[in-house]
Amino acid sequence: MTWEEIVDKKRKALFALIPEKWRIPSDQLPPESERSVISFIEQSNLLTAEELAITALKVNELSGKIASGEYTATQVCQAYCHRATIAHQLVNCLTEICFDAALEQAKELDEYFQKHGRTVGLLHGVPISLKDQLRVKGLESCIGYVSFLGKVDGDESILTELLRKAGAIIYVKTNVPQTLRFGETVNNIIGRTSNPYNRLLSCGGSSGGEGALLALHGSPLGVGTDIGGSIRIPASFSNLWSLKPSHGRLPYGNIKTTLDGKESIASVCGPMAHCASDLVYFMQAVLQQEPWKYDPKSIDMPWRETRYLEGKTGKKVFGVIATDGIFGFDGTIMPHPPILRGIQQVITALRKAGHIVVQWQPYKHKYAADLIEKIFSADGAAPAKRIIASSGEPPIPNFKNTYELNIPPIDLESLWKLHTPHSAVKHDDYKYYGYTEVINLLDWPATTIPVTFTDKEKDIKNMQYKCMNDLDKETYEAYDPDIYDGGPVGIQLVGKRLQEEYLLGLTEQIGEALVA
Amino acid sequence: MTWEEIVDKKRKALFALIPEKWRIPSDQLPPESERSVISFIEQSNLLTAEELAITALKVNELSGKIASGEYTATQVCQAYCHRATIAHQLVNCLTEICFDAALEQAKELDEYFQKHGRTVGLLHGVPISLKDQLRVKGLESCIGYVSFLGKVDGDESILTELLRKAGAIIYVKTNVPQTLRFGETVNNIIGRTSNPYNRLLSCGGSSGGEGALLALHGSPLGVGTDIGGSIRIPASFSNLWSLKPSHGRLPYGNIKTTLDGKESIASVCGPMAHCASDLVYFMQAVLQQEPWKYDPKSIDMPWRETRYLEGKTGKKVFGVIATDGIFGFDGTIMPHPPILRGIQQVITALRKAGHIVVQWQPYKHKYAADLIEKIFSADGAAPAKRIIASSGEPPIPNFKNTYELNIPPIDLESLWKLHTPHSAVKHDDYKYYGYTEVINLLDWPATTIPVTFTDKEKDIKNMQYKCMNDLDKETYEAYDPDIYDGGPVGIQLVGKRLQEEYLLGLTEQIGEALVA
Repeated sequence: MTWEEIVDKKRKALFALIPEKWRIPSDQLPPESERSVISFIEQSNLLTAEELAITALKVNELSGKIASGEYTATQVCQAYCHRATIAHQLVNCLTEICFDAALEQAKELDEYFQKHGRTVGLLHGVPISLKDQLRVKGLESCIGYVSFLGKVDGDESILTELLRKAGAIIYVKTNVPQTLRFGETVNNIIGRTSNPYNRLLSCGGSSGGEGALLALHGSPLGVGTDIGGSIRIPASFSNLWSLKPSHGRLPYGNIKTTLDGKESIASVCGPMAHCASDLVYFMQAVLQQEPWKYDPKSIDMPWRETRYLEGKTGKKVFGVIATDGIFGFDGTIMPHPPILRGIQQVITALRKAGHIVVQWQPYKHKYAADLIEKIFSADGAAPAKRIIASSGEPPIPNFKNTYELNIPPIDLESLWKLHTPHSAVKHDDYKYYGYTEVINLLDWPATTIPVTFTDKEKDIKNMQYKCMNDLDKETYEAYDPDIYDGGPVGIQLVGKRLQEEYLLGLTEQIGEALVA
Repeated sequence: MTWEEIVDKKRKALFALIPEKWRIPSDQLPPESERSVISFIEQSNLLTAEELAITALKVNELSGKIASGEYTATQVCQAYCHRATIAHQLVNCLTEICFDAALEQAKELDEYFQKHGRTVGLLHGVPISLKDQLRVKGLESCIGYVSFLGKVDGDESILTELLRKAGAIIYVKTNVPQTLRFGETVNNIIGRTSNPYNRLLSCGGSSGGEGALLALHGSPLGVGTDIGGSIRIPASFSNLWSLKPSHGRLPYGNIKTTLDGKESIASVCGPMAHCASDLVYFMQAVLQQEPWKYDPKSIDMPWRETRYLEGKTGKKVFGVIATDGIFGFDGTIMPHPPILRGIQQVITALRKAGHIVVQWQPYKHKYAADLIEKIFSADGAAPAKRIIASSGEPPIPNFKNTYELNIPPIDLESLWKLHTPHSAVKHDDYKYYGYTEVINLLDWPATTIPVTFTDKEKDIKNMQYKCMNDLDKETYEAYDPDIYDGGPVGIQLVGKRLQEEYLLGLTEQIGEALVA
């Protein structure tokens, strides 16, 4: 079979897994010209009132209603399966569907609950969506490569297993970019996943399918992975909350990757959610399963409630990255106007709540960003090139330049050129990773906090700004208020290594300050 | 200067730092033919009664007597400085001496105690000896290489700093093999360190100077490092207790190494001591200083007393590595008779104490041992060769074969050939690291528990044993009851990753069972 035939077969198989009753006739879908589809589901009559009610709940509310018997796991599972199919038909975010297995799992959970009068764990009956990298028995993990199609996983990632032990229902996997290396989500199999807030814009990446699905409430809670920003970028592009923990806090065992043996900087997995407390709930639920007993690289560190409460209460001093008096600027690439406004909004809210906010001059930020790029490119992207070549598929636009350059491994200077701090970018326009990937280099935990939306009336370009360098110029010029309008603006909160509880407590404080 | 001149200068400088009154005339030293010098100090009149009393104390007794005012830090410091010089004159174990600075530090601690009526930390006034790799301001860290001589450290290793914060006094550094890669201790600068129990035998390595110094009670507590057995080998060869923790539990920041960037298997530092409770005390004292606030690779994990008590109490099931029904045998290299007897002694003691002991068939042990050897040799030992070549000094006997082979990096198959499970080996005879280094590959914590001594009457060679392979044959044939007589026999207790507290609790239980 040609790669096109393989892809065609996969697309048809995926489409066939959407129950016929849930397929939306094209004349009922919003026209392609309609940028935002974020309110489409609520405004359509596609979901029942119950399905709408269920899919609007926070995770702790949802699990509470299952634990009290108000909803069965089956009801919840059906609502999310249905809503996920709509999300997919709007923004093309799924790679795998296993509704039959999910409903079977829900039935078993309901039987357990009936029989024992209690839940199996904190996530009893909660559907959880997984980035395509997480293995699920019986499904594929093609992670954006045609040549990985047809390889059905015979076992599961450790995190998948532990989520199931905690009672979670696995029902979909979500789209990623070919190579997993980009802050956008496009490949030759599923195609491109768009941003539900503005389909002209990217949903971010590499956990972009996850972000888009969650934005449309097609999932109550998702799992992404992050080695340079791949959880935080799609979370902030989709108005979500996320946690990228330090390495070892959550189990990464048996997650599909092409980076085996790359030990200098570790990819980590983490939750993406609708509110900060859902992130907390996820961490509590997983750590209760003691991942260190299953995954050799997980750290024997249970949830530390005291640290969480220390973060959640009391007045704090927040440092905001700043250069030349401009809050939010790392000195290399100037953030777009909506980002600067979002940061000011957070600073104002924090000061109003009695916290102290100070400028924090980044220390060797550019050096760190350059260093991590060199580490990432040390192998000349050889595995990705090899895997792409083996099926004959073409590289995606983000990867095209690198793919066509014949750069030998360990020629470290010129391989990746990546830049740009902005809200959700135009498709194929993601370039600067410095604001996120430096945090991976340091292995510090970070959360994403949604703040506001790009507003073309308020977020005017500063025509006086003199750019720092060519990349900065390119990035700043790319800001088009009309196109970026409506794109979410999030900030990143960074904590000390392995201090996820304290960081999550702070994240909740900021969330409260923002709505006060 | 030639390398010989540089070495001559270093030796003279080191000797000059031994106060004249403490230099022992050669006719008062035991003759070279006298194998054991382990009781020499007690039997000589070199130390005062007070010095003998101080240097016989366990660390918690010693610190208790300082905290109660019974001894000053100065008295303690002087006693250990004196005893360390005798140890050095017997087995050649020191690389650096800083008695003046140590006594100055002791004076300051005494003044603090006088003024405030309390100690600065758990190690107030306790002298701690450091393996040469640990940096101390104003001293060298030549780690066995002539070309590193003359480079005086301007700052300290993080562990050195934290030990000082806890009140420890730094007074000596101890000898290591050239390259740090061997289970023996010899180099062209200080020469060879011998085993105080039998000077025909090796003191082990690479923390061999530390082991020999401690065996002679020239130190109450020492710090070694371990990437393949370098703490556990000298501890077991010198009848000591030790802890090799998992990576991240103790700070490794700014320790001198030639392995920067080698991330697959991490060297760790850990304590070597006279009893299990001193290991516990060391861990409590260091973790109280919160190393994760200073060292980016240290894990935010305080001492967990509950876990320790869980290990220390209750009946347990112990697995003992075994093959073909032979307890202690990994299936590749047969342990020497005294080792097998020591293991039986531990099994008997544990069963008598009510514990259960089962055979544990090693899983892919040989595969793991081969794998770690490949990782260690992936660079073709290039840095060590380069550093040796830059001064013109010759390689030590252990390194000679590798040094002379011109093996390019990443030719993984043939570089290191290392074998042998035995009590302290004859000099230049250490070959098989499989029993210790597999534990480094897994990053599990392990302790050393001294059990017994080789006894030429009891530990008879099994002439019927059919060796498994050439290395096994070479190793087994190397056992000569007459030469090995008197060498200490220790066992290794292995725990789960980052569960040092539980492991130390178990270690204490075994210690109690052995003397019951």
